[in-house]
Amino acid sequence: MIKTLVVLSGGMDSTALLHLAIHEEGARNVGAVSFNYGQKHGVELVYASEYCASMSIPHEVVDISLLKGTLSNSALTGDFDVPEGHYEDENMKVTVVPNRNMILLAIAAGKAINDGYERIGYAAHKGDHAIYPDCREEFAAAMKECLRLCHYDDGIELWRPFIDFRKEDIASLGTGLGVDWTMTWSCYNGRDLHCGKCATCGERKEAFAISNLVDPTEYEDED
Amino acid sequence: MIKTLVVLSGGMDSTALLHLAIHEEGARNVGAVSFNYGQKHGVELVYASEYCASMSIPHEVVDISLLKGTLSNSALTGDFDVPEGHYEDENMKVTVVPNRNMILLAIAAGKAINDGYERIGYAAHKGDHAIYPDCREEFAAAMKECLRLCHYDDGIELWRPFIDFRKEDIASLGTGLGVDWTMTWSCYNGRDLHCGKCATCGERKEAFAISNLVDPTEYEDED
Repeated sequence: MIKTLVVLSGGMDSTALLHLAIHEEGARNVGAVSFNYGQKHGVELVYASEYCASMSIPHEVVDISLLKGTLSNSALTGDFDVPEGHYEDENMKVTVVPNRNMILLAIAAGKAINDGYERIGYAAHKGDHAIYPDCREEFAAAMKECLRLCHYDDGIELWRPFIDFRKEDIASLGTGLGVDWTMTWSCYNGRDLHCGKCATCGERKEAFAISNLVDPTEYEDED
Repeated sequence: MIKTLVVLSGGMDSTALLHLAIHEEGARNVGAVSFNYGQKHGVELVYASEYCASMSIPHEVVDISLLKGTLSNSALTGDFDVPEGHYEDENMKVTVVPNRNMILLAIAAGKAINDGYERIGYAAHKGDHAIYPDCREEFAAAMKECLRLCHYDDGIELWRPFIDFRKEDIASLGTGLGVDWTMTWSCYNGRDLHCGKCATCGERKEAFAISNLVDPTEYEDED
C-alpha cells in the first residue's frame, strides 16, 4: 500500500483519480489537498470538500489566495472576464495562471513530506492542452524528477495514471469506479450552475457524449 | 540586458547576488522577491525590504505564512526550538522546511512570468548542505529544467552564479561589489541581534574569518 495524496480540484479528472487511489490503496492510505488560489470558480473547493467528507477522506484546503495579486495576469484570478470558446483558441491563453501547476505540486509535496505521504496523485491527462505550458508531458516529466530529489532517499513520487487517457476515458473509468459526477465541478465561472459555454464546460459535455454516458450535469445553457 | 528577479532572503548570499545582478544588468532590470513563510526569523524580511529600498529596487514580500500549518514539521516554522550546533549535525535536520526551495522558486517563477522577468536569481552555493535535500546540485539542475518548461518558448531561466562558490567566496565578492553586510541578516533566531550560536550564525562568522574580512556583525555572544 502506498500512502497517496491526491491533488483534488473538485473536477472530473481529479475526483476520478481519488476513486482510483482508494480502489488501489484503500481509503485509509489516501488523502486529498486542494488549493484556494483566488480562482473565480472557488465553488470547486466546496465540491472537493463535500466529496472527501462523503468518502471519509482527510482533506486540506491550502489557502494561497494571497498569491492572487502576485499572479494577477490571468482571467481565472484577475480583473477580467473568462472567455467563451474552445481550449485551442488563442484567446484562451488568458486563462493561464502563471506557473500554477508547479506551485500547487510543490506545496502538495511539502505537505506530503510533512504528513508522511509517499506520493502525489496528479490527474494530468492526454487531453490537457498546449495552451497551458505546465500541462505538457515534458513539464510533468521534469517535475517528476524534481519531486524525486526534493527530499531524502526516494523523495516523493509523482503518480500520473491518466497521462495516456483522454477525458472520455476518465469519464468511463470514473463511472466504473462509482464516481458521483453530480458532486464534481468543472465550470470556470463560479455561478450556481455550470455555464455550459466556457471551454471546460464544453470539454465536460464532450467527455460524457463521446463515452456514451448520460451527462447528469445541470447547465445554465442546455443547448 | 536580462530582466532578473532575485530571490532575496535578506541574508549574505542573496544580497550579494542582488548586487551582482545590478552590476551586470543595471538596476532598472533587476527586481527582488522575498517570502514570509512563517519563519521565526521573519526579521530577515525587514532587512530584505530595507536593502531594496536603499538600492531603489522593486521588491515584493509574498505572504505564504498561511502555509505554516501545512509545513509545520520544522523548527523554523513549528512549535519547537531551533537547535544550536553545526549544519552537518544530524539534529539540524529539524530546521528543514518541507520542500521549501521548490515552493519559493515556483512562486518566484509565477511572479517572473506575471511581471515579465526572464530569469530568477538563486543564491544556492557550494557550501549549502547535504542535510537540506533541496539545496543539492541535482535538485537545482532538475528545477532548472522545470523552469525552462513552465512557460511558452524559453520559459524562465534559473541563474545560479554562486553554485561553485563557497560562502567565503561570496563574502569576498560581495565586499568587492559594495554590499553593506550590516544590512543583512542570517540568524535563525529572530531576536534583536544575531545569536552567534546557531548554525547559520556560525557560518556567517566563518565566512568573514576565512576571507580575512572584518565581521561587522554585532552578536549576542561575542565568543
